[in-house]
Amino acid sequence: MTEIDVRQKVLAANAAAAAALRQEFLASGTLVVNLISSPGSGKTTLLEATARALKDRFRLGAVDGDIATERDAERLRLSGIPARQILTGGACHLDARQVEKALAEEGERLASLDVLFIENVGNLICPTSYDLGEDFKVVLLSVVEGDDKPFKYPAIFSRAAVTLITKSDLLPHVDFDLAAVRRQVATLNPSGGFLVSSARSGDGMDSWFALLEEKICKKRAVAPARAGC
Amino acid sequence: MTEIDVRQKVLAANAAAAAALRQEFLASGTLVVNLISSPGSGKTTLLEATARALKDRFRLGAVDGDIATERDAERLRLSGIPARQILTGGACHLDARQVEKALAEEGERLASLDVLFIENVGNLICPTSYDLGEDFKVVLLSVVEGDDKPFKYPAIFSRAAVTLITKSDLLPHVDFDLAAVRRQVATLNPSGGFLVSSARSGDGMDSWFALLEEKICKKRAVAPARAGC
Repeated sequence: MTEIDVRQKVLAANAAAAAALRQEFLASGTLVVNLISSPGSGKTTLLEATARALKDRFRLGAVDGDIATERDAERLRLSGIPARQILTGGACHLDARQVEKALAEEGERLASLDVLFIENVGNLICPTSYDLGEDFKVVLLSVVEGDDKPFKYPAIFSRAAVTLITKSDLLPHVDFDLAAVRRQVATLNPSGGFLVSSARSGDGMDSWFALLEEKICKKRAVAPARAGC
Repeated sequence: MTEIDVRQKVLAANAAAAAALRQEFLASGTLVVNLISSPGSGKTTLLEATARALKDRFRLGAVDGDIATERDAERLRLSGIPARQILTGGACHLDARQVEKALAEEGERLASLDVLFIENVGNLICPTSYDLGEDFKVVLLSVVEGDDKPFKYPAIFSRAAVTLITKSDLLPHVDFDLAAVRRQVATLNPSGGFLVSSARSGDGMDSWFALLEEKICKKRAVAPARAGC
């Protein structure tokens, strides 16, 4: 087999595992959100704030992918939601089998969730190609990373249903042309959502929570076992 | 062949190409620096500032790896040094053959350099395993990315000869425990250098320039065709 053959085989096996996961999540009415960004764009911080805001109304949970350390899952457990760390053994992305295994090991607690957040490995490239059975991908971009990133990493910005700009409280201290980023994302992904937020100041967080709530209710409405919102 | 076989074959081919490059760089006395970081940590901005400070004393040049856009090489050419963009065709790292091809295409201009900067694809994981014939790796970490990153991405922080903390002008606006990061890096890489800098304010840049100058002179001292500094 050539390198390309091997990659196609890996992606095909992943697609099959992702399809099985998607069926399970449909049956349980669990909304699944795959969060992708560079290291340090604020995925865990976003989930901590989301847990604080929504955990009393919805059953939230998370799996966290990393090369090393259990730190992200620990932070989320401290914010009051079940979270399981997946160490990828050096791989720069999660795959569907790892998610399946983590859910099986975690058992009931994750299976009965309203929302499962999948916090992918910090990377703007590798996670893009691996379907994890999610309902949609969210790409995070902090205002400190520069306003050229959508066109430099077009695959993820064109595939994510939502682009979430983070750390907007730092806008006064950096050169970041928000309008230019919005235009790049609109070019790559005309139907995608675009939100601007700061978990630190709270700006824009209500829009993120409202988006989640709308998606949770839509997912429940089609789930056999649920009654909708 | 299994996936692991293919990966080993790819890395072996890369190692052979890197060894050939290293011989060339030794013969020409060119110091080669492989810059690795997340997207948006400030690699291009660092090189712009370095070009402004050193281009009148040393012959500098760059190759820039990206998934898409020629933006980084354009920025560096505007700062007055020759730079060639390498588009990786989706790959999350540069490999030695891509560097070899870019240098061949660029011809004389890069071959006669005192320093070749290789600005890798924005990624803390994939570039770590690919030797590019460089003298040393520099890993950049901006203070906005969080103080847990060395332990979360141990491979690159243990292999880089220098950890360069960037965007230190933003320290007053973020939670970033610099001492904790220094301790993590010291644990992973006891002999590694550790610099704190801001290209925006200029803080710490002199230490970076001094480090480069020292390395340039050491490389020249062992090059057959050079007279040292």
